[in-house]
Amino acid sequence: MSSTSTYQLTLHPVFDRLATVYGDGLVIDAGEEVRVTYAEFAERVRRVCTVLVDDFGVRPGDRVATWSWNSLRHLELYWAVPLVGAVLHTLNIRLHDEQVRYIVDHAEDSLILAHADLASSAPGGAVVLDEVWDKRVSGAEPMRDFPPVPEDAPAGLCYTSGTTGMPKGVVTTHRQQWIHAMSCGMVDHMGLSEHDRVLPIVPLFHAFGWGIPYAAPFTGAEIVLHGADSSAENVARILADHRVTYALAVPTIWKETLPVLRRGDHDISALRNVFVGGSASPRSLIEAYRELGVNYMQGWGMTETGPVATVARPRRGVDDVLDYTGTIHAGLESRVVDGELQVRGPWIATGYYKQEPFDGGWLPTRDMVQFEPNGLFRIVDRAKDLVKSGGEWISSVELEGLLLAHPDVRDCAVVGVRSRKWDERPVAVVVPEDGEVSIQSVRTFLGPKVAKWWLPDEVVTVAEIPKTSVGKIDKKVIRDQLSHLELP
Amino acid sequence: MSSTSTYQLTLHPVFDRLATVYGDGLVIDAGEEVRVTYAEFAERVRRVCTVLVDDFGVRPGDRVATWSWNSLRHLELYWAVPLVGAVLHTLNIRLHDEQVRYIVDHAEDSLILAHADLASSAPGGAVVLDEVWDKRVSGAEPMRDFPPVPEDAPAGLCYTSGTTGMPKGVVTTHRQQWIHAMSCGMVDHMGLSEHDRVLPIVPLFHAFGWGIPYAAPFTGAEIVLHGADSSAENVARILADHRVTYALAVPTIWKETLPVLRRGDHDISALRNVFVGGSASPRSLIEAYRELGVNYMQGWGMTETGPVATVARPRRGVDDVLDYTGTIHAGLESRVVDGELQVRGPWIATGYYKQEPFDGGWLPTRDMVQFEPNGLFRIVDRAKDLVKSGGEWISSVELEGLLLAHPDVRDCAVVGVRSRKWDERPVAVVVPEDGEVSIQSVRTFLGPKVAKWWLPDEVVTVAEIPKTSVGKIDKKVIRDQLSHLELP
Repeated sequence: MSSTSTYQLTLHPVFDRLATVYGDGLVIDAGEEVRVTYAEFAERVRRVCTVLVDDFGVRPGDRVATWSWNSLRHLELYWAVPLVGAVLHTLNIRLHDEQVRYIVDHAEDSLILAHADLASSAPGGAVVLDEVWDKRVSGAEPMRDFPPVPEDAPAGLCYTSGTTGMPKGVVTTHRQQWIHAMSCGMVDHMGLSEHDRVLPIVPLFHAFGWGIPYAAPFTGAEIVLHGADSSAENVARILADHRVTYALAVPTIWKETLPVLRRGDHDISALRNVFVGGSASPRSLIEAYRELGVNYMQGWGMTETGPVATVARPRRGVDDVLDYTGTIHAGLESRVVDGELQVRGPWIATGYYKQEPFDGGWLPTRDMVQFEPNGLFRIVDRAKDLVKSGGEWISSVELEGLLLAHPDVRDCAVVGVRSRKWDERPVAVVVPEDGEVSIQSVRTFLGPKVAKWWLPDEVVTVAEIPKTSVGKIDKKVIRDQLSHLELP
Repeated sequence: MSSTSTYQLTLHPVFDRLATVYGDGLVIDAGEEVRVTYAEFAERVRRVCTVLVDDFGVRPGDRVATWSWNSLRHLELYWAVPLVGAVLHTLNIRLHDEQVRYIVDHAEDSLILAHADLASSAPGGAVVLDEVWDKRVSGAEPMRDFPPVPEDAPAGLCYTSGTTGMPKGVVTTHRQQWIHAMSCGMVDHMGLSEHDRVLPIVPLFHAFGWGIPYAAPFTGAEIVLHGADSSAENVARILADHRVTYALAVPTIWKETLPVLRRGDHDISALRNVFVGGSASPRSLIEAYRELGVNYMQGWGMTETGPVATVARPRRGVDDVLDYTGTIHAGLESRVVDGELQVRGPWIATGYYKQEPFDGGWLPTRDMVQFEPNGLFRIVDRAKDLVKSGGEWISSVELEGLLLAHPDVRDCAVVGVRSRKWDERPVAVVVPEDGEVSIQSVRTFLGPKVAKWWLPDEVVTVAEIPKTSVGKIDKKVIRDQLSHLELP
């Protein structure tokens, strides 16, 4: 059979479509109270391309870093940088200086672009996206001819902020983001549509903004960016004011926003779906949103999975999937090795930046899972966070999910503490709603829900649960804080 | 940046998922009254693979032809042939012997497999899928290790039965079918889901069965195959008996089936969507199905477009799209050159088999179109079927769509006939419901709907509209039949 040249899956034709077919769609920066159409957005992106190349000498393959929250300027760079063949490197603005310096050095960034409001915290040498920048951009000619970019060219780079070890770089290619974006439009996946207006509350600097910067324009969905303020009041206001249909955030945001929405003075009748990842959501939270008419969907992914790999949708013959993390997306492959979930596929990283590729393309997720025959699975725990009690495993994640539904618990974490008899025993670290939460109350509440030997031995009350820069429970810090404890 | 090996988009992991994640889904052969689960189907496919390789010496790259209607055996070959690296060549069982001989020679088929009921009409040398075949298959070991196949390897071959010239071969690769299948799961495209049970009434030998053999298992949808009988009564019975949620056919089928469904003695409450392509549907037909609670969607595609490229879904700000062919799918590119639609993209053919590739990858569709700024378009006509009257174009397709809604017209075609004054003038060729349809009645009916100079000058009554082997109006034959006519 004659071989012919293969169509290249790059972001360029997606960009052309955004500017034309979806040209009347809106990009709304709710933080800066600006709204532009996709057609206007595209013209501005073309000018940014010219500035990057002509004024800053950006060349194909260069890493261009960003230091920004969810803003229109950030979204422009999500497009302009890969369109000129360079690599968008999103820096996490919540990391310590030292980590940032390590990452910038490791990535060999040739340019860092910082949001004006974040100029003071930006890494040295950053160019500020201020009025001077805006003047440059509006004075530049829109770029019409982009350099040729093959589909396997890197488009993005994001470092994972592991709770142990130095951050690791994850590269994503044009092709990976193209296929991921298409998968986000599937009915049984995220189900994005041209009729959606999407609010990614997840930071754009975290795990490629859960894919929204490319997936929304790919499907024609409109985008709302919330800026710096992710307080419950502001989230509720934006959901209502901008008629958001689809929003994405970690469970903490939804837990905090729930009482505000329940007051009923924000009209969220447009909101159909929320997509929730980062950690497991308690059943009670999911059900509370469904009572508000919102389809609360759990999802799962990592920076390494490009980022979205799973959503919990009803399956054939299984209507209630609330106790599951979900099903690995069609198009991806999965396997379980010694309890650990491993995945590979067209939008899964094939290795870390400047390291050896994964064996056979299989990404080791470090998540311990249980699978049903039909592929529904639940994450039992992060491999390193399982509590090993008397040779048996106790899932700290499951206990946390259950405990979050306790009426007196605002936030919580469960960790293993050294035990003379059992090696480890679970201890609940709790932020109370007010007053205190007793160990009796915890054991009584969890008693009917888990095996007796899973019940925590102690409760430690704290004012705040230590979290990582991306909002995950920082168990390393908690374990350090509890290192003085020893149980019988 | 380090280059790593790219994940290959082949049908193999899709097949693995069909067998496991969707293993309890059903494949129903309504013609032969057989139903198997996808898990059972997959085991059988693995045995067919062994038979193909061990008994018939099929090797990667070989063309293996089928001579069958929509049957379980045919669907098995849709999977087994590409899994062993060979190319599934679906022969059109309605072509004349001579055309079939040309195609088999041109494709250099190494094996032809014929459905038992079609043995007598099969090309010489065909192996019949009879009891001997079944015995072979059930006695074979299921193949567990498939030969390595790169994503750009051809998986399918189908000849287009043009109304002029010799048939042309269209090759589709693993990668093309993989991406096409994913696109069929998108909300704004076909929207297939695991919760669907799909009935492709379109023949599996025509235009890759509109993609269903791969798209349904990719998304987890179940499949119903109707066998040889696509009469209105049988279609209605299958829709009801098998709780079909999604069905695909040409407009003629839906027009014929409508009165049977309207009788109300078939429970089609499961049926949510029908996807209709091949020719334009009259608005009245679409609305009649919507009154039955069925979402009647027009689609567009060709064998060359892999096959589905367009669906008419509501757009942002445009609820009523019934007068449009639809919007080119996200992931594809389109342009209009001298009124002709051209498309390219990851599931569009890049050239005809054994011919030069298309210039720049752009497929010339020969369809004349009108585009709105937001990408909604309508097909005005096939380039060669436009009626050229006094230097202006008249769309025969549009007149046909309107005329089909005439209460006394069962079927119709419009062609241009030589005119001394105008070069060409439109003539309506009509199959009446009963009795006759007068030219006055046609002009009165169309009068409020089109420009006066579009109104046909004559009506010719016929018992049947000549159709091609895939059910399209054969205008070449009609023009020959009317060659004696000349208008003033």
